[in-house]
Amino acid sequence: MTQKFLDFYFDYSSPYGYLASERVEAIAEKHNRRVHWHPILLGAVFKVTGQAPLTEAPLKGDYSVHDFHRSAREHGIEYKQPNPFPVATVAACRATLWIREHNDTQIASRLSDFVHRVFREFYTNNNDITDTNQILTLAGALGIDTQELGQALSEQPLKDALRAEVNEAIKRQVFGSPMIIIDEEPFWGHDRLEQVDRWLASGGW
Amino acid sequence: MTQKFLDFYFDYSSPYGYLASERVEAIAEKHNRRVHWHPILLGAVFKVTGQAPLTEAPLKGDYSVHDFHRSAREHGIEYKQPNPFPVATVAACRATLWIREHNDTQIASRLSDFVHRVFREFYTNNNDITDTNQILTLAGALGIDTQELGQALSEQPLKDALRAEVNEAIKRQVFGSPMIIIDEEPFWGHDRLEQVDRWLASGGW
Repeated sequence: MTQKFLDFYFDYSSPYGYLASERVEAIAEKHNRRVHWHPILLGAVFKVTGQAPLTEAPLKGDYSVHDFHRSAREHGIEYKQPNPFPVATVAACRATLWIREHNDTQIASRLSDFVHRVFREFYTNNNDITDTNQILTLAGALGIDTQELGQALSEQPLKDALRAEVNEAIKRQVFGSPMIIIDEEPFWGHDRLEQVDRWLASGGW
Repeated sequence: MTQKFLDFYFDYSSPYGYLASERVEAIAEKHNRRVHWHPILLGAVFKVTGQAPLTEAPLKGDYSVHDFHRSAREHGIEYKQPNPFPVATVAACRATLWIREHNDTQIASRLSDFVHRVFREFYTNNNDITDTNQILTLAGALGIDTQELGQALSEQPLKDALRAEVNEAIKRQVFGSPMIIIDEEPFWGHDRLEQVDRWLASGGW
């Protein structure tokens, strides 16, 4: 049987992306799918859609911060509102892609752990995930060669790879985080995970 | 026992408001609450929040229209995308308020029927709910005196009442449709109805 996937698009600077990252694997596994992690930069996406960061919107911003905490509490997920927020996650995204696409399956197999590590450092420890050295430290703790990763982070191919990943996301009409695509069916938002579960269970409607 | 309420804020020109209007009463009743209908004008709210109508946003707009249909299908609700859309719902909102606040409880008791009637005319029959005569016809079909309502619609007090309703909504940080407030706890979006149900069942978290 071919392994089926569930495409999970996220920005590390997205609280709903974090909350969903903590729950999406259980839903995927329940339906014999594997999560395919797609790190993206909402900043680049927002240039196309004309949106602004959620927490900066009048009224909606206050609600959002309240809801981040509330939704985390409901699902038993640790959450602290990071400060500063939002942040630039370019290095974290590039490192994620590098791990995902690595020829050494030992390294590639750490992808999911790395994603969780970066998210949790940001949303539970208020660690500075914009700092390349921090990203290298997190990767190193998972047994990844930090010299090789550090080198890749400074070179053009990895920069191009992230740009291509974001452009491909926009081509697939990804406009937010998290965005889940099941085959070609898109679902936007942490609050759609239950609907994703029902979709997978029923085969769609 | 005092009757407890669930505040339901909606714009008639909001598809998610329509979908939620078809489901919210069952959830409220399950928890011994009554829906308190609050018609608002998102146009006025968007002046405060700087948002634009959902269907006009690049990428997000296409997703939304797809999702209106999909979410309707999931819940067995009839749905046709109205055209033109969005529309100005001032007359419909004013009529809703007039019915809600009427001293004659016989008239006030038709409120819920009227709300559903307007929504369904727009989202299943593509009827022009911007037209005051249409609104009067819909009200008349529910046994409401159309001459009295028509008179009220042309006078200042009802205009002021809607303005006050919208301002009060903004003061309560209502920024979208549907928005449900349980006591002081706000929930935004049709896709939060399940969370509203869990919140009411558990007493919050």
